[in-house]
Amino acid sequence: QELMGLGLEADIPEDGAPLDVSVGIEISQISFVDQKSENYGAVVTIRASWTDPKLAYDRDEDSRKARIVKPDEFLDYASKRDTIPPGFIISNQQSNRWIHHAVIAITPDGEASYFESSSLTLQAPHFDFHKYPFDTQTFFFEIVSVFPNDVVTYSGDEAFSGLGDMLGEEEWVLNNPRLEVSTTTGISGQESDRVTLVFEGHRHTQYYMIRIFLPLLVLITVSWAAFFFDDYKKRAEIAGANLLVFVAFNWAVSADLPRLGYLTFVDFILQWVFVVTGAIIVFNMVLARMQLKGQGELAETLDYYVIRWVYPLGYAAIVGFAVVRYLLT
Amino acid sequence: QELMGLGLEADIPEDGAPLDVSVGIEISQISFVDQKSENYGAVVTIRASWTDPKLAYDRDEDSRKARIVKPDEFLDYASKRDTIPPGFIISNQQSNRWIHHAVIAITPDGEASYFESSSLTLQAPHFDFHKYPFDTQTFFFEIVSVFPNDVVTYSGDEAFSGLGDMLGEEEWVLNNPRLEVSTTTGISGQESDRVTLVFEGHRHTQYYMIRIFLPLLVLITVSWAAFFFDDYKKRAEIAGANLLVFVAFNWAVSADLPRLGYLTFVDFILQWVFVVTGAIIVFNMVLARMQLKGQGELAETLDYYVIRWVYPLGYAAIVGFAVVRYLLT
Amino acid sequence: QELMGLGLEADIPEDGAPLDVSVGIEISQISFVDQKSENYGAVVTIRASWTDPKLAYDRDEDSRKARIVKPDEFLDYASKRDTIPPGFIISNQQSNRWIHHAVIAITPDGEASYFESSSLTLQAPHFDFHKYPFDTQTFFFEIVSVFPNDVVTYSGDEAFSGLGDMLGEEEWVLNNPRLEVSTTTGISGQESDRVTLVFEGHRHTQYYMIRIFLPLLVLITVSWAAFFFDDYKKRAEIAGANLLVFVAFNWAVSADLPRLGYLTFVDFILQWVFVVTGAIIVFNMVLARMQLKGQGELAETLDYYVIRWVYPLGYAAIVGFAVVRYLLT
Amino acid sequence: QELMGLGLEADIPEDGAPLDVSVGIEISQISFVDQKSENYGAVVTIRASWTDPKLAYDRDEDSRKARIVKPDEFLDYASKRDTIPPGFIISNQQSNRWIHHAVIAITPDGEASYFESSSLTLQAPHFDFHKYPFDTQTFFFEIVSVFPNDVVTYSGDEAFSGLGDMLGEEEWVLNNPRLEVSTTTGISGQESDRVTLVFEGHRHTQYYMIRIFLPLLVLITVSWAAFFFDDYKKRAEIAGANLLVFVAFNWAVSADLPRLGYLTFVDFILQWVFVVTGAIIVFNMVLARMQLKGQGELAETLDYYVIRWVYPLGYAAIVGFAVVRYLLT
Amino acid sequence: QELMGLGLEADIPEDGAPLDVSVGIEISQISFVDQKSENYGAVVTIRASWTDPKLAYDRDEDSRKARIVKPDEFLDYASKRDTIPPGFIISNQQSNRWIHHAVIAITPDGEASYFESSSLTLQAPHFDFHKYPFDTQTFFFEIVSVFPNDVVTYSGDEAFSGLGDMLGEEEWVLNNPRLEVSTTTGISGQESDRVTLVFEGHRHTQYYMIRIFLPLLVLITVSWAAFFFDDYKKRAEIAGANLLVFVAFNWAVSADLPRLGYLTFVDFILQWVFVVTGAIIVFNMVLARMQLKGQGELAETLDYYVIRWVYPLGYAAIVGFAVVRYLLT
Repeated sequence: QELMGLGLEADIPEDGAPLDVSVGIEISQISFVDQKSENYGAVVTIRASWTDPKLAYDRDEDSRKARIVKPDEFLDYASKRDTIPPGFIISNQQSNRWIHHAVIAITPDGEASYFESSSLTLQAPHFDFHKYPFDTQTFFFEIVSVFPNDVVTYSGDEAFSGLGDMLGEEEWVLNNPRLEVSTTTGISGQESDRVTLVFEGHRHTQYYMIRIFLPLLVLITVSWAAFFFDDYKKRAEIAGANLLVFVAFNWAVSADLPRLGYLTFVDFILQWVFVVTGAIIVFNMVLARMQLKGQGELAETLDYYVIRWVYPLGYAAIVGFAVVRYLLT
Repeated sequence: QELMGLGLEADIPEDGAPLDVSVGIEISQISFVDQKSENYGAVVTIRASWTDPKLAYDRDEDSRKARIVKPDEFLDYASKRDTIPPGFIISNQQSNRWIHHAVIAITPDGEASYFESSSLTLQAPHFDFHKYPFDTQTFFFEIVSVFPNDVVTYSGDEAFSGLGDMLGEEEWVLNNPRLEVSTTTGISGQESDRVTLVFEGHRHTQYYMIRIFLPLLVLITVSWAAFFFDDYKKRAEIAGANLLVFVAFNWAVSADLPRLGYLTFVDFILQWVFVVTGAIIVFNMVLARMQLKGQGELAETLDYYVIRWVYPLGYAAIVGFAVVRYLLT
Repeated sequence: QELMGLGLEADIPEDGAPLDVSVGIEISQISFVDQKSENYGAVVTIRASWTDPKLAYDRDEDSRKARIVKPDEFLDYASKRDTIPPGFIISNQQSNRWIHHAVIAITPDGEASYFESSSLTLQAPHFDFHKYPFDTQTFFFEIVSVFPNDVVTYSGDEAFSGLGDMLGEEEWVLNNPRLEVSTTTGISGQESDRVTLVFEGHRHTQYYMIRIFLPLLVLITVSWAAFFFDDYKKRAEIAGANLLVFVAFNWAVSADLPRLGYLTFVDFILQWVFVVTGAIIVFNMVLARMQLKGQGELAETLDYYVIRWVYPLGYAAIVGFAVVRYLLT
Repeated sequence: QELMGLGLEADIPEDGAPLDVSVGIEISQISFVDQKSENYGAVVTIRASWTDPKLAYDRDEDSRKARIVKPDEFLDYASKRDTIPPGFIISNQQSNRWIHHAVIAITPDGEASYFESSSLTLQAPHFDFHKYPFDTQTFFFEIVSVFPNDVVTYSGDEAFSGLGDMLGEEEWVLNNPRLEVSTTTGISGQESDRVTLVFEGHRHTQYYMIRIFLPLLVLITVSWAAFFFDDYKKRAEIAGANLLVFVAFNWAVSADLPRLGYLTFVDFILQWVFVVTGAIIVFNMVLARMQLKGQGELAETLDYYVIRWVYPLGYAAIVGFAVVRYLLT
Repeated sequence: QELMGLGLEADIPEDGAPLDVSVGIEISQISFVDQKSENYGAVVTIRASWTDPKLAYDRDEDSRKARIVKPDEFLDYASKRDTIPPGFIISNQQSNRWIHHAVIAITPDGEASYFESSSLTLQAPHFDFHKYPFDTQTFFFEIVSVFPNDVVTYSGDEAFSGLGDMLGEEEWVLNNPRLEVSTTTGISGQESDRVTLVFEGHRHTQYYMIRIFLPLLVLITVSWAAFFFDDYKKRAEIAGANLLVFVAFNWAVSADLPRLGYLTFVDFILQWVFVVTGAIIVFNMVLARMQLKGQGELAETLDYYVIRWVYPLGYAAIVGFAVVRYLLT
């Protein structure tokens, strides 16, 4: 058994047992959620505490109740005492980590507590946009031990962990935080312990209702109304103008999403609305042509059914299918 | 009673009393207010002063009137004297904190003064956009002690604190700064003292008047005028063009706000203007149809009342309702 | 009299006189001017020189003609010699200051010279956009002593200061640099010396001529011409299209400015052009109505005067008033 | 033979053989691919391991199984032992490299292992957009030894290298990673060893189908349909409106690409669609003119063939040619 | 003669001759060219080598063939040996300089070699956009000695310098690199040596052809064609629509350039196309009026010449004049 692939026997912890570190993760601020880049910014407080007799000191020599040391100095401190500093990596860290404050407190008994407050960008690769904008996403914050789990083990500090009460995120409703302890292949290439804070988020849908669905509904309703009153050519013109508006909607929606390999709920609707609108234009042209060629009555009959039934039912079918296909699965 | 959960008795301050630190916060520049991310950038001067006999030195050995040390060196300085450096965390800090200058001056009597000038981004999570753009928002800058309040207590340095006289912020009128001292759960998990500089801001509304409300008013007035002179079809066309302009307004306004879970004042108005414009198009189509079917007189009568009374009163009612519902509550 | 509010007598300089530091500021590059954020980026060379016998060294022990030390080491150097390092703060610094190179040279006689080349973002809070885009703005770069002026005084190093000859700024014509020495309340809360490099800038107006005023002029001229040839309804349509173009202009202009609490020169013109265009639409509708009701002659007479005199003179009056009201005051 | 051009003989490794370093590169996250700047962001784990007896230590003196040192301290460590730290440069690094964690473990036998987790931006200069958006691109991550290859040689650590299983990149399908060892001219100006992780990517084409090709197809189909039903003038108007839409498409597509010196697949199609649409407008104007001059029958005959055959076949030919010319070569 | 204005005699180099440093600059990547900010990003390798007997060491004491030191340590190294570290400033550096790797190698004979690989943003203030987009620009990278040239002189390391073979820049064709040695006023206020890598760039014009000139040409051609077939009013409408398109083009082009104080080639063309289109609208209105007043024949005659000759020749004259005035001077 090797430590970091170096041919070391696993007896680094002299007493045979690995060093157990209790890890807590509290996300106090969400500075942004960038669904296009699939990451989010957070201000986080990390707390790790463990007991290592080698870190203890004699109060006769040092009367202090606790030694407060900076993390950098702690490496020296641990090195001089032949013990290991239980370093960690935030495995879904994506940017630099700006440390606002970090300190280690050591008691005479060798109890050590690491506290860190920092801001960073974190990967959120589990995004699944199929139900967009009615999607629920999973976010996580993952701490992995630098040392294999025969040297350092992790346990979760549930009491300390979770989401703060003032995250400052308006678009997402974030909830259901939970702490999970597992193992993974660490930086050393061996099984290492991992503590993950997982939480979930869904969107306020108000925004999408007012900005996308309401305008769509009004535009489609108005152009439907036009079909009862206008002649065939005029209808084609109105639908043609709508076509351009739908292209604009399509581009606006896509600007908010990564370039996906699949259709989202809203993509699906916009796409079919677009195709149907194109078909309606052609249909009205055909009707105009029929009228011109003296088949006015047939045209009117066709028109009667299409306007009254095919058009509204067609759109309803699109939305209904999308809801069943995307949202209810 | 524990220090940082380490099982230490609370007798760190040997004389029984916690170290009292006087904290002052002066915001000298506001570099930006980002309402979408709900944060703001500031250049701030922080001043903390306290007296600790352990920091004193003998002027026979060191003739200087004051020792000027860098914060990093102060950790050593304090550590060697068995006393604690009263560290703090800015709890709504959201970015890295770029320190322009930081220094600690120590007198022979053990009076210590920390001065810092720095720039950073701060969370402003209290934003409430219901009255937008006539909203008043609360901003804060919050310093929390790293140590529990049985070790370090804070008092407010009112004389030093406040807003500078050249904040360099054009959009917001910022005022009413006040310093509040309270306690909160600190990084150690225990009750810690907190000093908060709170201030308020409201917007110059000129911008919104000229860019949103004036164009809206002119467009609606002109299309109202059109209703007196044009035929029914022409009116529907004009209103249809307005519909697209209102979609553009809607998108432009939403680009300035986070994706909220509620309607703002201006959203409410835009939304109803949009719906009413859609209804007017349909109404005019109906009138045109009636005219065509020989019900021209009835159409005119209906038109007479709608144009003269329903249209202007309807818009006035929307605005009036919005004012009462959003601004006066 | 206190040093940094610490109860120190003012005799830090043993010989009774404060340390005089000669400060020079040369801005060698302007990397950007961001009028919306009211700041600018600069690469600057700062030079500070002073003579302090305590810094002197014996050439018998150290044969060097000058000691070249890094600023960090200088703090030690000064501390060991019981003298103060005359630190400064750039009071309108808004970002981190990236130091490209900084060095202190000390001669055996105790002459010290600090040289720094750095890049940073600086606040420019004096922006006044009333005359935009024909405005002249004042920029500054302000260095304030960390120590009160009974400890350290500043004098201006005129020969070294100013603007470089290759600023790399295209939009602004920057000139009239001058060095001003004054006092202000420093970080210590006491009167401290300040050296300010002030300079001014006005814009190349070519851009605004081609992008805003020329299109406006052509559009207004063309629509005026249309009034001589088209019927009333057509005119209203043309003016209606212009209305939308003016909304776009309005938004484009506002995207370049902060959200001000007042109208700029160009805002004033755009606003009135907008209102006038709205009025013209209504006016033409009224004329069309009159014609329809058999008052064609009266309509033509009205039209004759309005087109020939009111329209051009009205626009000229708007521009004239704007010039007098905004530019000539 | 020189070391770094300094006139040193190549006997730095006393035993005659260069130091062999096994290098592994694992890309665990792709934070972005910016095709316009031709770079990509990655979070990477780098592992380098080598054996150097000079690094060994005596377990009688230091009982630790492994010494864990920070990279900075390792320079001292190596320097004191008269051996070299096998430094490397990431030759396609384009930004700062933010190191999340870096550590060196040394065993008593002198086995050293360097582990680094970091985030950075990397140049991707091999981009070839001819087949865009159906292009396959090559990405790489290239580590070059600071020392010439008679001092330090590299071998590839295949087992450790590759792409992680949660890259978090939605737009690109990244695959086919392989590790290549080669030599290049290093920073010292001499032949140095290089380890490159090469991988490939192609795009999800769904996005382009829905946002570009579907709208294009619908617009062209609808305007083709119009040709069967509308008169010549109307057709010209419809095609004229399309012309403006195609300009908008052209600009939108170009906003995603660097300003290339060649046409991409989609550029080629858009360009010819644009030119053909222009030609169709002129063609319809000619037909209208012919009709007006009494050559209506000839116009109809021409029209018959053009609409039925030239128009659809022309577009098919453009697409067909583009496919053959761009995609199949 | 002074060193850094400190009253030092110029005998710092004891042997009377200044230290000669050979400087090489190789730009290996161009990460961006930002013509609006007039700067560019580069990854650069800098190499400086010089021989200073004071740096030599005795191989009996230190058996190493070369000492590899970090730049920070070199300051100490040089200081202890009473010699100067030949520091430099990159005078057109505009951002922080992120150093990827930097090392100094010293041989027993006192030969020192500094190698640095770094990324930074550099000012490019020589931009002249008159011929845009057919302009050729000059870029540079300028290293200035911190010391005056009686202390340190520079020579160019031609063999090492130049542009790398994979710059990763798509828009610009960069070439003609050359190394120039000159003197300038340095940070010390005295004549200092300077080494400059100068290179040139011109654009791939494909982009501008497809995105600007082709659409312009098609739009103008189509509207010209319209003049042969449509009536006067229709023409005015088509030209009016073009007017708005040209405004959009104008804004799009200007978004890529700084706000210049002069017209570029493309500005000149767009401006005159705009004015001419405005004139054509008015001209067609006049013709329509003449027709209405019974001067139809005169109108037709005027029209005949204007359409056939004035219109095409007018545009050709604009382009021709622009080419002669802007490109051939």
